[in-house]
Amino acid sequence: MARPKTPLLSAERIADGAIELADRTGDVQMTQLARHLGVAPSSLYSHVSGRAEVIDLARLRMLERMEPLGPAHDWREAVADLLRRLTTLYATHRRILPLLAATAMTCDRSLAVYEPMFAALIDGGFRRDQLRLVVAMVEFQAFGLAQGLPAPAMSDHIRETLPAYTASVDHSRYDLATATEFSVAMVIGGLEAIRTHPGGP
Amino acid sequence: MARPKTPLLSAERIADGAIELADRTGDVQMTQLARHLGVAPSSLYSHVSGRAEVIDLARLRMLERMEPLGPAHDWREAVADLLRRLTTLYATHRRILPLLAATAMTCDRSLAVYEPMFAALIDGGFRRDQLRLVVAMVEFQAFGLAQGLPAPAMSDHIRETLPAYTASVDHSRYDLATATEFSVAMVIGGLEAIRTHPGGP
Repeated sequence: MARPKTPLLSAERIADGAIELADRTGDVQMTQLARHLGVAPSSLYSHVSGRAEVIDLARLRMLERMEPLGPAHDWREAVADLLRRLTTLYATHRRILPLLAATAMTCDRSLAVYEPMFAALIDGGFRRDQLRLVVAMVEFQAFGLAQGLPAPAMSDHIRETLPAYTASVDHSRYDLATATEFSVAMVIGGLEAIRTHPGGP
Repeated sequence: MARPKTPLLSAERIADGAIELADRTGDVQMTQLARHLGVAPSSLYSHVSGRAEVIDLARLRMLERMEPLGPAHDWREAVADLLRRLTTLYATHRRILPLLAATAMTCDRSLAVYEPMFAALIDGGFRRDQLRLVVAMVEFQAFGLAQGLPAPAMSDHIRETLPAYTASVDHSRYDLATATEFSVAMVIGGLEAIRTHPGGP
């Protein structure tokens, strides 16, 4: 009996196909995904419940490809590691970001990737009610850094009328690596300030 | 002679229509925009060059509706004001955010809105090469805050296996106002730390 020409369909293969499709087109629709994988749409539904689950599985595959966050000796190290790794991951898959942002993270295994981070923040003395806020701020920075900023506008008129903006552009060193390290320093410095003022937000 | 039933088309009316359309549908295409405004597509092109200009004009209208950033006495005040105002503005128009992120800001009048912020940062002692980075970090936070985070997942299995994440959810006070003030404190504390270490990133 001949071996099948394509590997058997699995949740992993569907998720990988969704990442490829999003990287290429910026969207994941079930019909297009089935065509991309060379299967009938009905075959997809024997593995996943629909589009939201596919996107959640794609996030899991991405997070599991990231270098794992081990137990951290220090919350600063945990925050810096998470911010740098998420930024690199998201920058590699920019076009899937709007889909991730719009889809709830429900998979236990995705949440487990973040567990060492929550544990490090508790060990580091952050209040329980601050934990989700800290992780949210790190996510916002990683999303923004990965998407970057468009090239700055400049013209003779801008140069004449907006001197402070012009100075910022003339001396700009905006690139992903510089911006990421600036963000790491800002987030850690800011969290340090919040942590040492227990009455803070 | 009868007066026209609809106000005359103008760049402002096109921009306002684009904001309404994006708020409702999450996209702005020229054909849909013409239909929304009750004009022929060709009429749009006598006022704007195309979709990118429409989105840039929509951003200008949004920024000009924001309470203006006056000359700041202090960079901390300027950063806090910009972060709070952008967050409120973006939260009101969540669905246009991906369009703004994907479209270069080229309009002088939009850039002028940010000028007091750049000036306050220079007065506050930030290096010229740090200015765009500071504004970028504020934008990333405002974008993220406005979009928010989906409701956290929870289950018996998560409760048993992810204690630190579970603690974060059980004590979560995530809402826009709390998250915004946490972000303001983090950004200002972090920038203060960077500013007082001139060798920093």
